[in-house]
Amino acid sequence: MYKEFKIKPPFFEIGTKAYLYGEGVLALAKAADIISKKYNVSIIFDPQYVDIPKIVEETENLYVFAQHMDSLPIGRGYGSVLPEAIKAAGAVGVLLNHAEKRISLAELNKTIKRADEVGLATIVCADTIEEAAAIAYLTPNIIVAEEPELIGTGKTSNANYVKKTIEVVHSINPDIYVLQGAGISSGKDVYKVIKAGAVATGSSSGISKAVDPVAMVEEMIHAMRKAWDELHK
Amino acid sequence: MYKEFKIKPPFFEIGTKAYLYGEGVLALAKAADIISKKYNVSIIFDPQYVDIPKIVEETENLYVFAQHMDSLPIGRGYGSVLPEAIKAAGAVGVLLNHAEKRISLAELNKTIKRADEVGLATIVCADTIEEAAAIAYLTPNIIVAEEPELIGTGKTSNANYVKKTIEVVHSINPDIYVLQGAGISSGKDVYKVIKAGAVATGSSSGISKAVDPVAMVEEMIHAMRKAWDELHK
Amino acid sequence: MYKEFKIKPPFFEIGTKAYLYGEGVLALAKAADIISKKYNVSIIFDPQYVDIPKIVEETENLYVFAQHMDSLPIGRGYGSVLPEAIKAAGAVGVLLNHAEKRISLAELNKTIKRADEVGLATIVCADTIEEAAAIAYLTPNIIVAEEPELIGTGKTSNANYVKKTIEVVHSINPDIYVLQGAGISSGKDVYKVIKAGAVATGSSSGISKAVDPVAMVEEMIHAMRKAWDELHK
Amino acid sequence: MYKEFKIKPPFFEIGTKAYLYGEGVLALAKAADIISKKYNVSIIFDPQYVDIPKIVEETENLYVFAQHMDSLPIGRGYGSVLPEAIKAAGAVGVLLNHAEKRISLAELNKTIKRADEVGLATIVCADTIEEAAAIAYLTPNIIVAEEPELIGTGKTSNANYVKKTIEVVHSINPDIYVLQGAGISSGKDVYKVIKAGAVATGSSSGISKAVDPVAMVEEMIHAMRKAWDELHK
Repeated sequence: MYKEFKIKPPFFEIGTKAYLYGEGVLALAKAADIISKKYNVSIIFDPQYVDIPKIVEETENLYVFAQHMDSLPIGRGYGSVLPEAIKAAGAVGVLLNHAEKRISLAELNKTIKRADEVGLATIVCADTIEEAAAIAYLTPNIIVAEEPELIGTGKTSNANYVKKTIEVVHSINPDIYVLQGAGISSGKDVYKVIKAGAVATGSSSGISKAVDPVAMVEEMIHAMRKAWDELHK
Repeated sequence: MYKEFKIKPPFFEIGTKAYLYGEGVLALAKAADIISKKYNVSIIFDPQYVDIPKIVEETENLYVFAQHMDSLPIGRGYGSVLPEAIKAAGAVGVLLNHAEKRISLAELNKTIKRADEVGLATIVCADTIEEAAAIAYLTPNIIVAEEPELIGTGKTSNANYVKKTIEVVHSINPDIYVLQGAGISSGKDVYKVIKAGAVATGSSSGISKAVDPVAMVEEMIHAMRKAWDELHK
Repeated sequence: MYKEFKIKPPFFEIGTKAYLYGEGVLALAKAADIISKKYNVSIIFDPQYVDIPKIVEETENLYVFAQHMDSLPIGRGYGSVLPEAIKAAGAVGVLLNHAEKRISLAELNKTIKRADEVGLATIVCADTIEEAAAIAYLTPNIIVAEEPELIGTGKTSNANYVKKTIEVVHSINPDIYVLQGAGISSGKDVYKVIKAGAVATGSSSGISKAVDPVAMVEEMIHAMRKAWDELHK
Repeated sequence: MYKEFKIKPPFFEIGTKAYLYGEGVLALAKAADIISKKYNVSIIFDPQYVDIPKIVEETENLYVFAQHMDSLPIGRGYGSVLPEAIKAAGAVGVLLNHAEKRISLAELNKTIKRADEVGLATIVCADTIEEAAAIAYLTPNIIVAEEPELIGTGKTSNANYVKKTIEVVHSINPDIYVLQGAGISSGKDVYKVIKAGAVATGSSSGISKAVDPVAMVEEMIHAMRKAWDELHK
């Protein structure tokens, strides 16, 4: 866990995978930047590696993360993603172990330690409650709890799953944030998951494949604000 | 083979692997840019992904390449390197199948086709003469012929190996350039390999680990010019 | 190429993947053993690793192959498949680079050399004509030419594709056998591909998923014999 | 955790990696079989896949394990290791996630579940105390705690490390056995680690590379018996 990383809940993660790049992803990032400020909701934004520098430069409020990085030290390693390079490019964190980019437990452990060392926050993906518990022992900043059978279905986890994951992770380390993912494809989904007790959620395909991605971001962030305010005011 | 890619021999490849990043790699790129013009030698430069945009923006003569990319189409693929993103960032090519980033034959074939499709030149690494021949059938723009036992030794291939690789590759496809790599660690090495008949060579550790990387680039490019002129004038 | 490996055309490959194991695969192997003799057709049979010894012991005519092996030398390597162990278990060859078990070009090259060294024949899979040509330079005993879009479809390559692959591979090395795979799911398919000029073909799912795998083997081998005799007598 | 798996402490694991195969590994297994009985010490023995059937057949007391397996179900998967095939071959368990054969956390989780399903015990390797804790949440039968910096050094973990790992794993699940590995290269090492409180240890290179592997097994098992008796009588 990179302790200097501070993010105010509720927060939302936008992962553009390999859907968007160049001008397209920059436009979405700029819109998200404005929406983040408007609704006072923190947004984590993970673009393609090459798009990190420009997005860092042209936005103010986003938490720009890399979609992955390697654990290697400065040195050899053609084609790998060096932690120091990600940090120098302006990213503030990195996502690890996505279902589309699995890494071994030992590599995950080493990469989290490298992130701590260079000063990058870590979000780590878990498929199941037992994997979330396992990952909690490696002390990332944030754990993404996704029910794999829900990914891409538009169906979201029920309130019980949300509560149980948070409970298990916090029993191991109460400083780790739990982000409820999988199947978020509308403002309504966001509303439901926050009302179920989550402090964070996010969307990849739900936004990247939307007819109007910017409108979808606004719909989701608005829903997050609303659910949060209803619970906390 | 991306046919629009034109590079005038002799040319030189600088691969910074995971040695350099941020301000350090930018400084080296700018110096290489000036040296390229001064000696009228084409330079291919492959930095970390995140450093591509700034180097493209701040140099004029370099051929900026990615150190690797994936074959995936626009869509899912967290943490992968999308060909379209590399192209949009301003890179003109990509290196594939480095000894530190092996890919399967089928993936290599697909990635070369994706590069052709989006408009990126391809440099593909081969360990042996039979691998160079095999790769020639996949039609990249450039094949790097490295004797693996020489990598990092400071010893270079002899004139016979240089000639034989070129001969074999050209018997399959005369339009593919052969770049003689492995063990290049001084201007003298460059001189020798060009005099042996190569049109291209390059260096990674030889430059990145030099006490003064800029001076080393100048020494090597100067040697390349000299050897080339002696042969061709 | 392991030169001591001799197999009389026409020949047929039965790959049971992870469909069959234990008693089930042994029964199929024994039946194939009898069918091989009855029709005087050579059969290559690739079971799960652990099933190799018993099948070798209890059959007489089959050419038992491993479904994969690693290039490592005797020594460290937990969980890997040692060439010497495969050979000592009685296998006479190994299949490499299947679409479900890709390996890098360099690893493929090394593994073929290891097979030659310990005395194992090699069958290497290729997706496209250019990949078949590439692989021919690495000199395996047999190349499997499969059109990937046909795998599992029940559609087979047309006569033109068959001829072209053989032509290209033999222009590089006339001693390499070409096995036409992909989509073979009946005796009729086998008949067609042999009449189109192939010396070898094979089936995995077509046999393993058949209602009666033994009957399917007999149907296919019978068709092979018939087509071959019509062409060669 | 496969609950039907019962093994009486103290127990010892012999992993022959890719060092031994065929007649050589069979001879060692037979000797270990006799030594196991003589000293009343349980021995887990993991040979190459192809050597499992014969060792199962020709020994009585050994717990024969595979060095790895995949999580795939019966079906496609050329070159993979099917859990059902391992079970049918007579193995009683499988080792997973060795430093030389890493798998992702999700794959590890799935493979342990597959082992439970087909009836195979699981030994999972961990590099650090936090990885041991993480793995404990996936509920294998046995966790191997190895300090990676000690592997192959001939230096063993100190008593404090042994105690701490057991404590952490048992705080999560008291039914999981902890096997202290890394650097065991003599009977003295075995004695020390058992006296430090371990119920199990093992050796790979220490035995496979010994001048006389059988004598080394006897030395180690004798030391295990002695240390255990001193502690427990």
